[in-house]
Amino acid sequence: MINEKNVQLGKKRSIIRELFEYGKKRKAEIGVENVFDFSIGNPSVPAPDAVREALNEIINTFDPVFLHGYTSAQGDYSVRETLANYTNKRFSTNLNADCFYLTCGAAASLSISLNALLNEGDEVIVFAPYFPEYKVFIENAGGKFVVVENTEMNLGIDVAKLEKVLSKKTKAVIINSPNNPSGVVYDRESIKKLCAALENHNKKYGNPVYIIADEPYRELVYDKSVEVPYIMNYYDRTLVCYSYSKSLSLPGERIGYIAVNNAMEEFEDVYAAVCGAGRALGFICAPNLFQQLIKKVYDKTSDISIYKDNRDKLYSALKEYGYEVVKPEGAFYLFVKALEPDAYAFLERAKKYELLVVPGDSFGAKGYVRISYCVSPETLEKSLPSFKALAESYK
Amino acid sequence: MINEKNVQLGKKRSIIRELFEYGKKRKAEIGVENVFDFSIGNPSVPAPDAVREALNEIINTFDPVFLHGYTSAQGDYSVRETLANYTNKRFSTNLNADCFYLTCGAAASLSISLNALLNEGDEVIVFAPYFPEYKVFIENAGGKFVVVENTEMNLGIDVAKLEKVLSKKTKAVIINSPNNPSGVVYDRESIKKLCAALENHNKKYGNPVYIIADEPYRELVYDKSVEVPYIMNYYDRTLVCYSYSKSLSLPGERIGYIAVNNAMEEFEDVYAAVCGAGRALGFICAPNLFQQLIKKVYDKTSDISIYKDNRDKLYSALKEYGYEVVKPEGAFYLFVKALEPDAYAFLERAKKYELLVVPGDSFGAKGYVRISYCVSPETLEKSLPSFKALAESYK
Repeated sequence: MINEKNVQLGKKRSIIRELFEYGKKRKAEIGVENVFDFSIGNPSVPAPDAVREALNEIINTFDPVFLHGYTSAQGDYSVRETLANYTNKRFSTNLNADCFYLTCGAAASLSISLNALLNEGDEVIVFAPYFPEYKVFIENAGGKFVVVENTEMNLGIDVAKLEKVLSKKTKAVIINSPNNPSGVVYDRESIKKLCAALENHNKKYGNPVYIIADEPYRELVYDKSVEVPYIMNYYDRTLVCYSYSKSLSLPGERIGYIAVNNAMEEFEDVYAAVCGAGRALGFICAPNLFQQLIKKVYDKTSDISIYKDNRDKLYSALKEYGYEVVKPEGAFYLFVKALEPDAYAFLERAKKYELLVVPGDSFGAKGYVRISYCVSPETLEKSLPSFKALAESYK
Repeated sequence: MINEKNVQLGKKRSIIRELFEYGKKRKAEIGVENVFDFSIGNPSVPAPDAVREALNEIINTFDPVFLHGYTSAQGDYSVRETLANYTNKRFSTNLNADCFYLTCGAAASLSISLNALLNEGDEVIVFAPYFPEYKVFIENAGGKFVVVENTEMNLGIDVAKLEKVLSKKTKAVIINSPNNPSGVVYDRESIKKLCAALENHNKKYGNPVYIIADEPYRELVYDKSVEVPYIMNYYDRTLVCYSYSKSLSLPGERIGYIAVNNAMEEFEDVYAAVCGAGRALGFICAPNLFQQLIKKVYDKTSDISIYKDNRDKLYSALKEYGYEVVKPEGAFYLFVKALEPDAYAFLERAKKYELLVVPGDSFGAKGYVRISYCVSPETLEKSLPSFKALAESYK
């Protein structure tokens, strides 16, 4: 008689979690160095030294009553001001401190944004392949999860398909670029087409659609020629959900923010709704020590060249072994076509070679697997013969 | 057309927030030392040295990939194990690591617990006076906020009144002892009577009621003779929501936990629902650095003798000046009868003496004000003539 939906959510392990448990067991059996675990997006590159240095300075020089005390619900003013100035300089926006709401991580940013925008029954569109928890967050906010399917190897934005699912009930579209699980970056032309389609929709129905830009992987692009368009520059009704989990290798510290574009007509209401949703959900005052940390290291990243090397090495090797691979421009994921139609069956065979990869089904992409290459270079190197043998077993 | 409820929640300032802004302005006008701000429950006593020492050790000796990495959604196993062992030793419970869910603060603990338990339309009972955000959290979880009124100076648990509002729709009762805003501690006899009433209810209706014990003030009691009963020892269906905000003066760091009593029959489902609600709301993996901190300092507190001195001094002085005051046994609040029926009018007069106190209306106690005495001893000392003059102005 308690909340059955949440009982089930708590009991039902995600496939990633199941693989995590399997991997733990297998590593205990045959040694951690003999299991090639590509299932989890936990950065293997440590946080940059600047993080430890800043933490030491903050802990040993700040007044503890200030440092560990409450900030305002939306975050310390000076932290938010720093983020606004940095964003304006980098992306030519015109934001100010009161466009920002500091959050306890990316999940919090999404949960708050969705609760701020949605009324019961509103629809939220995501593009396959997508991060599986979007469905959980959207449904928890009372929304309906609507997918733009994508069965082709082209994993960009298909605007024609989007237009088929846009309806007068559409309240938001989630964009995740660089993308988890495919590593694809949506280019400027795609974003422009997407935004034009949404503007058309807004005129047609009169009830505007918001873009929620989920950007934990923004800093993880590996070629200078690749630009990750800043959605606010193309669409006024944009909320950016940012997290430092991947850029600074701080996934366990849960620090990020929501930036609401003040170019939108109804900005005041949307920002108020973000504050109200944060309050109602219990997400007020993100951890202050990490707020102060971000104020010092907002423009730093971990050494992402390690991920680039991993990507280059793994991508080339997999192509050579005969896999069909999406060339990833960002994030730390490779999306690979399974060598048989059922990705779960493919995983079972991969396990025989001690390879752990995630079937794409829960990402809305059957027949694919996700390979998280945020592992150590040694693990990656050592895993290549297994990938080769796995491919050969299908020949 | 976005979520109007959350827009309003974001726009409507609480009285505490309004006083905070007024105080800031007034301090700029006449000097911070001349405004006696008793409106906010932000500890003035710094975190103990053990906190800084432990943070230094953790930051400079732990592997950063582990330290800043994801823990399991419910928190690091060894941290949860430490908490279980400590709780068992202290309160003779029989908990284990898998009874604990680490959270990002007390608001998170309450929000998750309510979402775990409630179905749409379920009723949650609180005792006046109560922490105002309970209403926000309960309603956001789809529940109905039900108050056991209390118009007398006796601010304990009135079981007869409770029985009048218990219904077959009651899903939970929130207990907050030591109490915000009254400082009252519910004694063992009251807790026993309360639990007996709930057991009777459970037999009568067949759908059990849970106690949510909100305990951020547990460590803040000032007399050795005062015991704060551990609710799990009296009632199986108990969830304890704990936070280190007040005990360790870490309110801005947002670290706490939910402990689900494994003595309850349906424990497995309730713990799963807590995990599921945490997942659905976006509250997974509390900040890891603070998880590791808690593992080291779980049994420490700030120097609460300063609060005791403040309480003793202020309580005696106010009695002497003719105020009717509830003798507070814990927390850092004094609950005082306003010297006129309208507490807001009383506040306006208090402001003339540069005193900021919070009208009790939003706590469900009209005609009272809350005085947060977690200020510095100097501020307290200097404020006494103002309290005296305010009382005399009514004679």
